[in-house]
Amino acid sequence: MPSPVKSQPVSSTVAWRRLTELARHPHDLTAPGGFSPERIAKLRAQACGLDILYAAQRVTPEVLVALTDLARETNVIERFRDLLRGAISNRIEGYPSENRRVLHFANRHLFDDLPDRADVRMPQDAVDDSRREMVRLAKFLEGVEQGTVTNAKGEPFNELINLGVGGSALGPRAIYLALQPWRYRDRRVHFVSNLDPDDAAATLRQAHLPRTLVTVVSKSGSTQETRTNEALLRDAYRRAGLDPNVHFTCVTAVGSPLDKEPSYREKFHMFDYVGGRYSPTSVVGGVSLGFGLGFSAFEDLLRGAREMDLASLDLDLGANLPLLMALLGIWNRNFLGADTLAVIPYSQALSRFVAHLQQLDMESNGKSITTAGVPVAWGTGPVVWGEPGTNGQHAFFQLIHQGPGLIPCEFIGFRESQYEEDEVIDGSTNQQKLLANLFGQVLALAVGKPDTNPNKRFAGNRPTLTILGDRLTPRMMGRLLAMYENKVAYQGLVWGINSFDQEGVELGKRLTLRVLPHLAQSHADSGAGSDAVERALLRAARLLPD
Amino acid sequence: MPSPVKSQPVSSTVAWRRLTELARHPHDLTAPGGFSPERIAKLRAQACGLDILYAAQRVTPEVLVALTDLARETNVIERFRDLLRGAISNRIEGYPSENRRVLHFANRHLFDDLPDRADVRMPQDAVDDSRREMVRLAKFLEGVEQGTVTNAKGEPFNELINLGVGGSALGPRAIYLALQPWRYRDRRVHFVSNLDPDDAAATLRQAHLPRTLVTVVSKSGSTQETRTNEALLRDAYRRAGLDPNVHFTCVTAVGSPLDKEPSYREKFHMFDYVGGRYSPTSVVGGVSLGFGLGFSAFEDLLRGAREMDLASLDLDLGANLPLLMALLGIWNRNFLGADTLAVIPYSQALSRFVAHLQQLDMESNGKSITTAGVPVAWGTGPVVWGEPGTNGQHAFFQLIHQGPGLIPCEFIGFRESQYEEDEVIDGSTNQQKLLANLFGQVLALAVGKPDTNPNKRFAGNRPTLTILGDRLTPRMMGRLLAMYENKVAYQGLVWGINSFDQEGVELGKRLTLRVLPHLAQSHADSGAGSDAVERALLRAARLLPD
Repeated sequence: MPSPVKSQPVSSTVAWRRLTELARHPHDLTAPGGFSPERIAKLRAQACGLDILYAAQRVTPEVLVALTDLARETNVIERFRDLLRGAISNRIEGYPSENRRVLHFANRHLFDDLPDRADVRMPQDAVDDSRREMVRLAKFLEGVEQGTVTNAKGEPFNELINLGVGGSALGPRAIYLALQPWRYRDRRVHFVSNLDPDDAAATLRQAHLPRTLVTVVSKSGSTQETRTNEALLRDAYRRAGLDPNVHFTCVTAVGSPLDKEPSYREKFHMFDYVGGRYSPTSVVGGVSLGFGLGFSAFEDLLRGAREMDLASLDLDLGANLPLLMALLGIWNRNFLGADTLAVIPYSQALSRFVAHLQQLDMESNGKSITTAGVPVAWGTGPVVWGEPGTNGQHAFFQLIHQGPGLIPCEFIGFRESQYEEDEVIDGSTNQQKLLANLFGQVLALAVGKPDTNPNKRFAGNRPTLTILGDRLTPRMMGRLLAMYENKVAYQGLVWGINSFDQEGVELGKRLTLRVLPHLAQSHADSGAGSDAVERALLRAARLLPD
Repeated sequence: MPSPVKSQPVSSTVAWRRLTELARHPHDLTAPGGFSPERIAKLRAQACGLDILYAAQRVTPEVLVALTDLARETNVIERFRDLLRGAISNRIEGYPSENRRVLHFANRHLFDDLPDRADVRMPQDAVDDSRREMVRLAKFLEGVEQGTVTNAKGEPFNELINLGVGGSALGPRAIYLALQPWRYRDRRVHFVSNLDPDDAAATLRQAHLPRTLVTVVSKSGSTQETRTNEALLRDAYRRAGLDPNVHFTCVTAVGSPLDKEPSYREKFHMFDYVGGRYSPTSVVGGVSLGFGLGFSAFEDLLRGAREMDLASLDLDLGANLPLLMALLGIWNRNFLGADTLAVIPYSQALSRFVAHLQQLDMESNGKSITTAGVPVAWGTGPVVWGEPGTNGQHAFFQLIHQGPGLIPCEFIGFRESQYEEDEVIDGSTNQQKLLANLFGQVLALAVGKPDTNPNKRFAGNRPTLTILGDRLTPRMMGRLLAMYENKVAYQGLVWGINSFDQEGVELGKRLTLRVLPHLAQSHADSGAGSDAVERALLRAARLLPD
């Protein structure tokens, strides 16, 4: 498989220069007719049961043409196709790098009714890997269900602790919380991530160990947090008179240190072409989500993701939601000067989805060099942050409305609630009130309000984008997840960076290992003296630079 | 009480101009000796059992002098004193505004051994108000404990649902989660905030209503989310054959619509001089925290906050932690150009503390006009965001290390764990590993690392500040909370803005009410047709501008 087409720096494309000019006069949403019903009706896109309303972006027809040209000039759809075809896209040219394919897409390539397009065939080995692990997972979960996978006394398991951090936790946890109505009534999943011993201690107070499975999730098989928590949990099992090997399973890369240990009742595998932050649709998400929500809910999630992957190949911007979102984000980031992006789900179920998006986006695109190893001369990934609406309205929206900076918002809403236990109060349901709040914010941020009192003045022209679906089901969750994954990939492709490595986390890890012995030593020297801790920092600093 | 001293715009102070010059050559942490043990030992401050290490800020001795001058020129310590003395500080000169005192400080003015300083006497009415409500709260909680406050069958309550949003939820919830080791074993507190009907529905699945108290928390007594959720919850009680009036209590301002209703078994009052985001130490936090953690834990929280309030009057920057943090934040924000601030607690217990800080900081200082009603010509509140370490290291730290922008970080760490159930694994405890990670990040971000491979290069000079305490107890939590409250107040005073109103949230509320009838109507017109929702937006937009 040849490597992706090499391309010029994005800033020297014709479209980039055109956009720079157009940014001098972005669309004025506050002008008469600037946010008209006609505009709202026209500027929308649709795919896979999701609608995107982007009339409240500061884009003119000329900007939309130039953004489309930018996609064409940077050839990103073809390069996105290359990802799915198995090109070595996780790399930096001319320097040692991971040199891997990017094929988390294979995790959801399971459905005969959603086959490859003729021109974008996914490598068979990756498809086979995924299907094999899925079959193993299904069998394991069936065993839990049917009472063949049990504890030493033959009792069924009804709790599971997912030990993992970052990509091994954020996505699965966000999805687990998002889909609680699908949860088995009598099962619970706990997530322990933090090295903080209080994280595990708090979970050990909640879980009933004799009937609790543990899944150790670490691609490298050597993550400090996870292996340490594993040691701590194994001790807790032993103290409870239980054999950890009956309770512990793991998810890791083939051949990792974890993979070589015999002390797991079941091992699931992930592959080097699936990055941690792209792994919720692999067995990384599969074990905890399959256990908690059932295998068929997990399968629905994958189906939704697969649908979105296929829609992400569409040449029409009105149907390729990830590409549309990527381009609008680039307009805000590079041409209107936004450093951050607020994602506000009007859905309590998505309360932790933004924590997953933070990793997905910021770890992927928080980069300063291109895939050619050259420093970028343009802004890359923004700071992504947010909390659910309406809560956020009562917290940080003040700054979005009246602060001096520009903060584009992405709102996510659903036409129906999950539990469908709504009531009409004062003439409307709560779900209607929730959506009215979402649209109330869209309007207020777009059009603003003049006032003789400067403290009651709203400048408007604060861009938002609204993502609407019918109901947050497992399948809808899969579409939403893949939409954001593919948006991030598209932005990375336009910016010409490698969205699939994370070299930036390495130095901190190394220096931690340098500090640690000093900290243990300081503590031994002076007991719990309150300076002991700081002295370790001093000692470690004395050794700098290395 | 006279209003605060009027002062010149901060940008025309001598110190501001000096800082602008100094910002051309900020301290270079990557230079030989730029992050020396001597510097680490010297640049620290201490008060109330908290240490702040700020050697990893890009400040030279000249910058520190200029920042001190800035505080002097803007007279902020005196103006902070004015807050405590009851000056009308929540106002905009020459325009209609809230015109209120700012006296959440009175909520923790309860301790005879922590009296007022002679020159900063707090108004007696506010002190009396607070003490009266605290006595009522203590009596109520004692009744719960001793079985005189019970359900209709005479059974004790062991769950409580806190119905409130924004300031009526974020702080109390963050603190409740932070202090779980102090929780009564057999009691639980739930927080329902969101208008999303799924929020209440999910909680109703967890709570056992016959033994559950509800506290409706709304200062105005008319918050849409809270009143709607109250109606929904009252229905659920009635369906369960229970009399809501036996279970419902409320916290609201004297004379609010809520206060006028007879249907609560107990009412607690808050006062117009306590803003929602400053209310965790009032009865707003008192009911849920007192119920869940016990009155004495809540009292300890207030004691810690009171200690920090007194320390916040210190003229010495080395002992006035809020002022020090405020000034360092201003250096990063206004002179080094940082738009955001990442707060990273290396403590799982503080997992939701940043959500509270987001409101506290962004709603207070996300402002664009001065207290004189003039547009600011300088950056005000940054976007505040973050997740606990070590989790964040595996999520968004990539961008902090290698992204193109500047993201100052505030780390919070503790020398001891809360549960004290730690183990030595591979020669160190987990708490030591946790702190080693914190310091590893401080070092890596400060000094960086050259490399011939551009992808493994770290520029360094990314400023951090580390807050260290011994153990996260209720009292420590109170100190930390008040430290951030007072930091935010100090920044607002330097910037010359009103940190105590939130006019920016009003327009969205009004437009929501404009959209709502269209939404209910669209739905009636076309059933659940997938366009019904969007048509409401169109109809509402057609009526713009008003």
